[in-house]
Amino acid sequence: MEKIWNNLFSDNIRDFEGYSIGKMLKYMRDPDIISFAAGMPSPDTFPKELIRRASAKILDENLESVFQYSPIPGEDSLIESIIEFLRMDDINIGEENILITNSGQHGLDITGRLFLNPGDSILIDRPTFSGALVAFNMERPTFIGVDIESNGSNIEGFRRKIEEAKKGSFPAVKFIYVVPDFQNPAGITMSREKREALLDISYEFNIPIVEDSPYRMLRYWGDSIPSLYTLDQQREGKNVIGLYTFSKMFAPGIRLGFNIGHPSIIDKMTNIKEANLLNSPKWNQDICDIFLRDTNFDEYFKKMQDYYRNKLELTLTSLDEYLGPLEGVSWTKPEGGFFLWITLPKGMDTMEFFRKAIEDEKVAFVPGEVFYGENPEKNSMRVNFSFPPEGQLKEGIRRLGSFLGKNI
Amino acid sequence: MEKIWNNLFSDNIRDFEGYSIGKMLKYMRDPDIISFAAGMPSPDTFPKELIRRASAKILDENLESVFQYSPIPGEDSLIESIIEFLRMDDINIGEENILITNSGQHGLDITGRLFLNPGDSILIDRPTFSGALVAFNMERPTFIGVDIESNGSNIEGFRRKIEEAKKGSFPAVKFIYVVPDFQNPAGITMSREKREALLDISYEFNIPIVEDSPYRMLRYWGDSIPSLYTLDQQREGKNVIGLYTFSKMFAPGIRLGFNIGHPSIIDKMTNIKEANLLNSPKWNQDICDIFLRDTNFDEYFKKMQDYYRNKLELTLTSLDEYLGPLEGVSWTKPEGGFFLWITLPKGMDTMEFFRKAIEDEKVAFVPGEVFYGENPEKNSMRVNFSFPPEGQLKEGIRRLGSFLGKNI
Repeated sequence: MEKIWNNLFSDNIRDFEGYSIGKMLKYMRDPDIISFAAGMPSPDTFPKELIRRASAKILDENLESVFQYSPIPGEDSLIESIIEFLRMDDINIGEENILITNSGQHGLDITGRLFLNPGDSILIDRPTFSGALVAFNMERPTFIGVDIESNGSNIEGFRRKIEEAKKGSFPAVKFIYVVPDFQNPAGITMSREKREALLDISYEFNIPIVEDSPYRMLRYWGDSIPSLYTLDQQREGKNVIGLYTFSKMFAPGIRLGFNIGHPSIIDKMTNIKEANLLNSPKWNQDICDIFLRDTNFDEYFKKMQDYYRNKLELTLTSLDEYLGPLEGVSWTKPEGGFFLWITLPKGMDTMEFFRKAIEDEKVAFVPGEVFYGENPEKNSMRVNFSFPPEGQLKEGIRRLGSFLGKNI
Repeated sequence: MEKIWNNLFSDNIRDFEGYSIGKMLKYMRDPDIISFAAGMPSPDTFPKELIRRASAKILDENLESVFQYSPIPGEDSLIESIIEFLRMDDINIGEENILITNSGQHGLDITGRLFLNPGDSILIDRPTFSGALVAFNMERPTFIGVDIESNGSNIEGFRRKIEEAKKGSFPAVKFIYVVPDFQNPAGITMSREKREALLDISYEFNIPIVEDSPYRMLRYWGDSIPSLYTLDQQREGKNVIGLYTFSKMFAPGIRLGFNIGHPSIIDKMTNIKEANLLNSPKWNQDICDIFLRDTNFDEYFKKMQDYYRNKLELTLTSLDEYLGPLEGVSWTKPEGGFFLWITLPKGMDTMEFFRKAIEDEKVAFVPGEVFYGENPEKNSMRVNFSFPPEGQLKEGIRRLGSFLGKNI
């Protein structure tokens, strides 16, 4: 493509290329490929009748308002419903603590814009969610990554980095970004002890924590651990900003989420949303509102958890069978979420494997390197088990095992 | 409100306050107020049956895809429909020239992010659309304004500013922002000669033009003038970026629009959209697609034009009657759009008048100063005639005349 105007583009955007995962999709058009590369919920879980019924109700009762502008922070009724919903998860907030966003991605971008000057540091896990890296990258920050551990972020590692920053090794840390529950991409959950320790650091150094919670309701085994937001409230702190989305617990196509936090933060985020896109569409907000009001969540999440637990079990059993015999290959055992993380022996390059695995064995995954803010590891991959049809899971892992058996 | 974290906010956002118009709305809750302050289409024009029918069709035929992620640039079918739609307006483009946005405001913000470093200059009219100022303000540019004339932007004034910038009086100009048809707020339309002259400047200095076209289809008198995009295409240029929205020609609540331009521009804008919010909701896109495919536009726009022409006529007649006798008071006579612009004698301050007019006469308008990027004029106001019910127009203008008669 002929390039023009490149010299006029802003410093933030000139070399910005967006998601690298997106560009891989063109290699995956063959319908015979079994793909563990997606990050989507299964259509089997969508409450299909609810959306039909809700839409008919909205268009019967509120047609005119569906056509008009909606309040910038979000529809009052939806905000009330979210307050109720979060109360079930021991989060107690008011309307001044919520901004409706146009997705989790949108919540991330608003967060990046609020805090980051070019060069500013953010603390992240290695690996971490690539969508957060992409959003924050538009502000050209300095990513300071610390290898994640099996029970969550390396909190002492974060502390050492903050201390190094204070000594001037890199710019001051603006916030710490974590996905405590069933982290994307590694599937790891942060222990309660680590959550408390992370809050200790946040208070000690006065650094906000950005808690990204897309998968929190999707726990398949074990007991729920209080969110950082809840623990912060219990300790009367104001240091956690929570990012939520309707994409995983309801439907990505609705394109809505919400950010929660101290009114100082929400107020500024509302200004950004206003200048960014004014307001969120009312039909979409009303659908989410009806979803929250009309759903029996015990039943709803139990069904969804049963469905995904079964898929995860199948995936883990197949991994034992087909990758178990391979030396130097290990993987995480998530208690929830959509993903697990496979680590190959050092020296392997999963980006090289990506095209070759599609060609040789018709199986796809996401190369691990896209989940690093700096100095990417090359010998890992993300495996999604939520989206592939149940019948493909075992065969897909068999193909992956066969490919790895020949190539490592 | 207690303020926290202020020291951590980015330089772009720390002092950013969003729209000042929004904050005025709290003064306008009394239902007896006649308000010319809004910028909304009238609900009388909404194609109500279409949206009910379209939604039922979408949820019957495409329910599963409505729940899932949609392509980042937009749905293929909607993009095709827009290409057809623009062809009726002598704009001939392909899918590589379009990005679906989440509104005109979103299109503006993406444009600002693409081009602007802090301090960069943009050329604008005095006055110009406040939403553009707010979006661009998130990048802290230098606004270089030139007083608009009765036949559109002062092109020779723009040229002089570019030359001053080249001499170093202010930073280089990144783009020129104009609303050529029925400009918000002044209601002024740029003549064909000026459009050609603006393109001359754009080619001579290699500066892109951002053409914001929310009202283009809403012409009530006179012949349509080719868009800058069309004229640029006729001259085989690549210098115009077109911003469109479904808000005025269809419904604001749908929250969709589109940006058009050279593939270099659209490609980069797509990266920004991806990191900003990934994709636009499919239901909303499908509704717009059906709107474009199923509407007889000759009929549709004729009806809409007849409706708004009647309101504009009533407003202009009432202005003659009630403001005509006031010395030093003048107003524009738009050929389309939603707004006209009243200028009072020098020394008047319409921001002071705003609360007083609501208290004394229960009539509201938008103080002109919010439509300036720098050195605001204080003696003007924007009057919206699209939204107030027809029966309120004469009485509203009578109240305004009565207020001004006592206060100027």
